[in-house]
Amino acid sequence: MKERILEEAERLFWKYGVRSVTMEDIARKLGISKKTIYQHFSDKEQILYQVIQDKAGKDQSAMECMVIETDNPVEELMSVLTLMQKNADGVSPNLLIDIKRYYPQAFAIFRQYKEGHIMRSLLENIQKGIFQGVYRSDIKPTILARLRVEQIELAFDNEIFPTDQFSMHDIQSELIHHFVRGMLTEKGFEVYNQFLNKGVQPIIYENK
Amino acid sequence: MKERILEEAERLFWKYGVRSVTMEDIARKLGISKKTIYQHFSDKEQILYQVIQDKAGKDQSAMECMVIETDNPVEELMSVLTLMQKNADGVSPNLLIDIKRYYPQAFAIFRQYKEGHIMRSLLENIQKGIFQGVYRSDIKPTILARLRVEQIELAFDNEIFPTDQFSMHDIQSELIHHFVRGMLTEKGFEVYNQFLNKGVQPIIYENK
Repeated sequence: MKERILEEAERLFWKYGVRSVTMEDIARKLGISKKTIYQHFSDKEQILYQVIQDKAGKDQSAMECMVIETDNPVEELMSVLTLMQKNADGVSPNLLIDIKRYYPQAFAIFRQYKEGHIMRSLLENIQKGIFQGVYRSDIKPTILARLRVEQIELAFDNEIFPTDQFSMHDIQSELIHHFVRGMLTEKGFEVYNQFLNKGVQPIIYENK
Repeated sequence: MKERILEEAERLFWKYGVRSVTMEDIARKLGISKKTIYQHFSDKEQILYQVIQDKAGKDQSAMECMVIETDNPVEELMSVLTLMQKNADGVSPNLLIDIKRYYPQAFAIFRQYKEGHIMRSLLENIQKGIFQGVYRSDIKPTILARLRVEQIELAFDNEIFPTDQFSMHDIQSELIHHFVRGMLTEKGFEVYNQFLNKGVQPIIYENK
């Protein structure tokens, strides 16, 4: 039952943000009583807390698989785009802002994940790229890794990218392509262009 | 006298942030009484307000001169770097955070300037670059202009780039070079490399 509650809560939070979803909503969707939910969770924040922790764990595994699958740093970063776009599909623009403003404890997990796992993978990716000669040797890995980590948050901020003007797909795609290109050497551009031509990772621009 | 107060206040704010500078400090530095300051300004916030407004105006003129001097969009963005580094030299890392947190009215001017003038110049720069064939035609100008505008704020945020780990010169330089490179076509890279080789705008990396 706990699993089902978490799944349904995740679906609802992603779709509507956190603030506008009540325990009542989650119970109704599952056809159970609120009492049943309270047997597993003390409040909505606790559910959110667990949802984010599970999500971060799943993302981390998915990304680790990608790194194992490819030894190509360019391809690796582009695969993250696919993962993010899958995640971002249908996600409420309020979600991250809700969490940031009203659920500091849950946001802390997100930040921890960002600071820890994402930052580390990015640093590894950049160092590998420099070593392989696909990224320029004159870039500063720590500054660029941090830039990319912050871009993830920027993309979700609907004050910066209003959702009536930009689609999440476009923003994520534009930012990551630009981020990768800004690091490439001539050899790196060959890999990048080959990758685009393979058509495995088409740049999806939604009509908006 | 008003001018002298503004100049001294700017110097002190830049060096120490806003919160730790008192009306007393400004008066002492100028060898005048606090009363003299109060004849021109009702409080510190009003001085700050004026300082930022003047600063934004001066920066705007300086940037417009650059655009007139060069018709080359790559050179134009790199010149902004020089301007920013001159401005950022010796600036207190607390300045922008102080203003953002404690002086919302003054921060609003900064935001207005960012939204208005900076955003407009960036959009023009990107469109010109695409037209001249130095920037890729598949980039989305509005998304990248916004990214760059946000980067300016990121660079000043000492929670994101702790000042004991990064120098402002390095951050600004790294971010703008990366930003430009991420847009360049093959023709654009020729212009960029020529520009670097000219040595007019050396990438200054401080030893830290």
